[in-house]
Amino acid sequence: MADNNSQYTAPLKDMAFLMNEMAQTPAHQEDLLFILDQAANFAQKELAPINQEGDTIGCTLKDGQVSLPPSMKAALVSYAQAGWMGVSMPEEFGGQALPETLASCVGEILTSANHAFSMTPALTMSACRAIMAYGSNELKSTYLPKMVAGLWTGTMCMTESHCGSDLGLVRTSAVEDGPGQYKIKGNKIFISAGSQDATDNIIHLVLARLKDSPKGIKGLSLFLVPAKLQDANGNWNQDNNVSCIGIEEKMGIHANPTCSMSFEGSTGFIVGEVNQGINAMFAMMNEMRLGTAGQGIGLCEHSFQKSLGYALERTQMRSLSGVKAKDKEADPLVVHPDVRRMLLTQKVFAQGGRALGQFCAQLLEQSHQGDISKEDQQLLDMLTPIAKGFCTEVGLESASHAIQIHGGHGFIKETGAEQLYRDGRIATLYEGTTGIQALDLLGRKVLGTQGKSLMSFTKLMHKLCKENLGNEAQQDLLSVLAKYSKEWPELTMKIGGKAMKNPDEAGAASFDFLMYSGYVTLAYFWAKMAITAQALLDGDIQPQDGNLDREFLEAKVLNARFYFERILPRALGHKSSMLAGMSSLMDISENQLQA
Amino acid sequence: MADNNSQYTAPLKDMAFLMNEMAQTPAHQEDLLFILDQAANFAQKELAPINQEGDTIGCTLKDGQVSLPPSMKAALVSYAQAGWMGVSMPEEFGGQALPETLASCVGEILTSANHAFSMTPALTMSACRAIMAYGSNELKSTYLPKMVAGLWTGTMCMTESHCGSDLGLVRTSAVEDGPGQYKIKGNKIFISAGSQDATDNIIHLVLARLKDSPKGIKGLSLFLVPAKLQDANGNWNQDNNVSCIGIEEKMGIHANPTCSMSFEGSTGFIVGEVNQGINAMFAMMNEMRLGTAGQGIGLCEHSFQKSLGYALERTQMRSLSGVKAKDKEADPLVVHPDVRRMLLTQKVFAQGGRALGQFCAQLLEQSHQGDISKEDQQLLDMLTPIAKGFCTEVGLESASHAIQIHGGHGFIKETGAEQLYRDGRIATLYEGTTGIQALDLLGRKVLGTQGKSLMSFTKLMHKLCKENLGNEAQQDLLSVLAKYSKEWPELTMKIGGKAMKNPDEAGAASFDFLMYSGYVTLAYFWAKMAITAQALLDGDIQPQDGNLDREFLEAKVLNARFYFERILPRALGHKSSMLAGMSSLMDISENQLQA
Repeated sequence: MADNNSQYTAPLKDMAFLMNEMAQTPAHQEDLLFILDQAANFAQKELAPINQEGDTIGCTLKDGQVSLPPSMKAALVSYAQAGWMGVSMPEEFGGQALPETLASCVGEILTSANHAFSMTPALTMSACRAIMAYGSNELKSTYLPKMVAGLWTGTMCMTESHCGSDLGLVRTSAVEDGPGQYKIKGNKIFISAGSQDATDNIIHLVLARLKDSPKGIKGLSLFLVPAKLQDANGNWNQDNNVSCIGIEEKMGIHANPTCSMSFEGSTGFIVGEVNQGINAMFAMMNEMRLGTAGQGIGLCEHSFQKSLGYALERTQMRSLSGVKAKDKEADPLVVHPDVRRMLLTQKVFAQGGRALGQFCAQLLEQSHQGDISKEDQQLLDMLTPIAKGFCTEVGLESASHAIQIHGGHGFIKETGAEQLYRDGRIATLYEGTTGIQALDLLGRKVLGTQGKSLMSFTKLMHKLCKENLGNEAQQDLLSVLAKYSKEWPELTMKIGGKAMKNPDEAGAASFDFLMYSGYVTLAYFWAKMAITAQALLDGDIQPQDGNLDREFLEAKVLNARFYFERILPRALGHKSSMLAGMSSLMDISENQLQA
Repeated sequence: MADNNSQYTAPLKDMAFLMNEMAQTPAHQEDLLFILDQAANFAQKELAPINQEGDTIGCTLKDGQVSLPPSMKAALVSYAQAGWMGVSMPEEFGGQALPETLASCVGEILTSANHAFSMTPALTMSACRAIMAYGSNELKSTYLPKMVAGLWTGTMCMTESHCGSDLGLVRTSAVEDGPGQYKIKGNKIFISAGSQDATDNIIHLVLARLKDSPKGIKGLSLFLVPAKLQDANGNWNQDNNVSCIGIEEKMGIHANPTCSMSFEGSTGFIVGEVNQGINAMFAMMNEMRLGTAGQGIGLCEHSFQKSLGYALERTQMRSLSGVKAKDKEADPLVVHPDVRRMLLTQKVFAQGGRALGQFCAQLLEQSHQGDISKEDQQLLDMLTPIAKGFCTEVGLESASHAIQIHGGHGFIKETGAEQLYRDGRIATLYEGTTGIQALDLLGRKVLGTQGKSLMSFTKLMHKLCKENLGNEAQQDLLSVLAKYSKEWPELTMKIGGKAMKNPDEAGAASFDFLMYSGYVTLAYFWAKMAITAQALLDGDIQPQDGNLDREFLEAKVLNARFYFERILPRALGHKSSMLAGMSSLMDISENQLQA
């Protein structure tokens, strides 16, 4: 009955399309595609097959030490040995210095095959970025080579039990204990892979507060706290009083331990300046947010693949428009329009999200190279909460469709659909909930730049429409896109005006603004993909790699139409809701809420 | 950190409002409210506290016999002893003959407190209804008293591994073995509480096919197959070759075993006529669908309560419009507009769904009394898939908001939010998926009655608008409602016209039609509740029970405004999608889907 739960095929064709045909600089992509193929191989052969087992076995804690499921431990070792951890890291520290566009695809492939696995490398790479950007040379040379090699992993230790998103409340303390060296004391919760038995050391990046630092986030400093220190003989065996005091029982990602960590006078080394910890943390956080967007995209993709496989195989009912599979006692699910609606919804979210992800990765690569304009940096800053918030939300929807397409079997562990749904549920919560992304987008990124960041994007929309005025085949899409490119800033102005009188107006509009922005952003990428695919089909442009896969390109054009006809209309509801203002939310008293 | 996972308070105030102020016949409701209070007591003290334990312990299978979690076993016995099983059953069989409006509220309270528990009584009562409507007098007198007393439970045995919703494919066979008596042979899957150790016997209603019966659903007959038969001494000890051969590992409702059942020449008694089994099964099914709607409503309610409790207690960040809780280091979550958006969404779905549920229960009661007009029966038939499909879908959304409001803690088992999400996920799958409800609604119930069923409802909408022409306070709501009362039939006509040319057009529009219908239906009930509440507040009418809870009534009026401003606009997107037609779904080939 069940399709094979461990099946996953990396969407290399679509990734190649984005890298070759959609990228601004499509040169030298063959090498990248070769590497992507190897990543696909690793994910398909080593990660997908252990996904269900990891969920079932989970992690255990004994004497302050977490044991991973054995297959997960082996996969982390194998991942390091193959050199994947350093794929986009500088050569200076042993990395391969490959571009973020590639790393973004690799990240999606890993998380799509095995969400629980992918979190540890993602956190490690983000920790490396923070150390690279803010750490002293000594910290860099001591820790980065081991981390880039995947011999040691990294964590982000921010949250404490009384403060989830509200980092200003952090109580973990730091006391100076020599130049650049501190004693760290406090407890942190929700630390992914805070303890594990796959590597010899774990490098924690810990937010803590010096005794005389100001309250709030401006009094936080960032410290590098290794689980093990170097002993007198130069071996990394000395205990640093870092221990895991609990692991959470949770809904999903069972193969990745969510740890409560205790630092009892642990030695920490400052990363960056005193009281500037939040900046370093946000540098790390923004990359993690793009990575989390990749988790949403990977979830859409895997959900689609699992659903399509089932819909092609499973027979149920006859088509409303007449028998399709005469040799069978019922037609395959895929003949039913409503099943197709769900399949295509998953597919346009996966491919549309991926196009957005690739676009962000190009900007991120420029940013890493120090070769980015102020406008483009603002654009990346704005697209980050859209990518994180929107792609993870539609990831959940896609996983829910996967269950729905499987019917009752979707509720059963055997098919694996329910694991996608459970594992994926974390993505709208961590690295800032959707509500946090929405506030960041509307408040800081859009209104905070007087709409400049948004105009950078709507300019791209205008440009696409203008460049394709003669494109009759896609004119219906483009005219809709043109309408939205005007409407989006107009809505922003209206809300901005209200928010100047009362900032709660921004809060009240923020979620609908985020979702509206997501739908419109993906509409741009779908229009662009359809135009590109059509031009390739018509021979107006030549494929970069010389191959023309007509079915893939035809599907692109048709999927774009589906997106505009059946998905983009959701923006109508979000528009209406965001314009309704705050009063229906805020006029209700707490007593009335409880009445 | 976590709020108390076992807390649940039955929404008696809202139920009393519906029964007293909104019902067509509000007489003699005091007695009912007294009984409801007892149900609330049972649910709060005996069901909610064992909900998490049942999830953790789950069921075990040994030698064909399932063991329930001990607390669940005790609760089923306690439920039977208190006489709850027979609450709306006829006195003739030992029931209390109380109206369906009450039973509907009791059902919601049970499922809200403990989803896994509530399924067994719900199935038993539905089985009783089928036996009552179609069984011989001997079957009735033999089985109903024990079932109504809760001493024996009932199941529905429909699905087989190769046919989920497609019952026409059922292969279980029946061979005549005496007058009205048959030997049943075959395997059934997904049988909730197919085996359990709380009662001495289980009465299975089994769909099977006689040897020379036609293929498809017209060849199915319904059989009553007890797990135990009466032996020569009149004791119900004789094994009937019914065994549980497996229980599913599933995402949620762990305390209710989902059984694979084997019937190996088991004795069965025909219920109704040969080859008419599907009618009897559908009689049972339609009541189960209303019961499942109650599960969606109960999920919205419990999600709201859990979220509100947390939002009032948990402090995170300061309000955007200035510090609210000066004595604390952060403000409670409830000050944040986006948290309120989620809370109110849960609340308007719970209370709006409940109003719909009560309306359906009134019609169902008339139907059971044989005192229903053809129009009202058609109306009930149409509202059933809306209630089932829409209320369970928004139930999932509400549970997801509960996780979101809890932030990272929502992903942790401790808070119980994730259990609501996992348990509730079944409700859009069983008793017909949302897709099946959508087809039933648009195809059979609306287009199949040439729109008459729909007109019965839009007439009520017109009437409400007309009766309240002078109601200035609610005029903005009413003018929107009037617009929808015209638009809904217009959309139906358009889709009906297309569907006459190609039935896949109905399939393509069905889901969006269902959701649109749900949003508009709840808008009617919210408008009616707001008008009623306002009239009570203004003293234009007097409360039936003499009590005026101003905060509750003010909240009703405000919540209605929230519903119209922030939730109803979603209908815009569904309208646009359903009008887009089938081509963007059906023009894509299977190869293109896989490309």
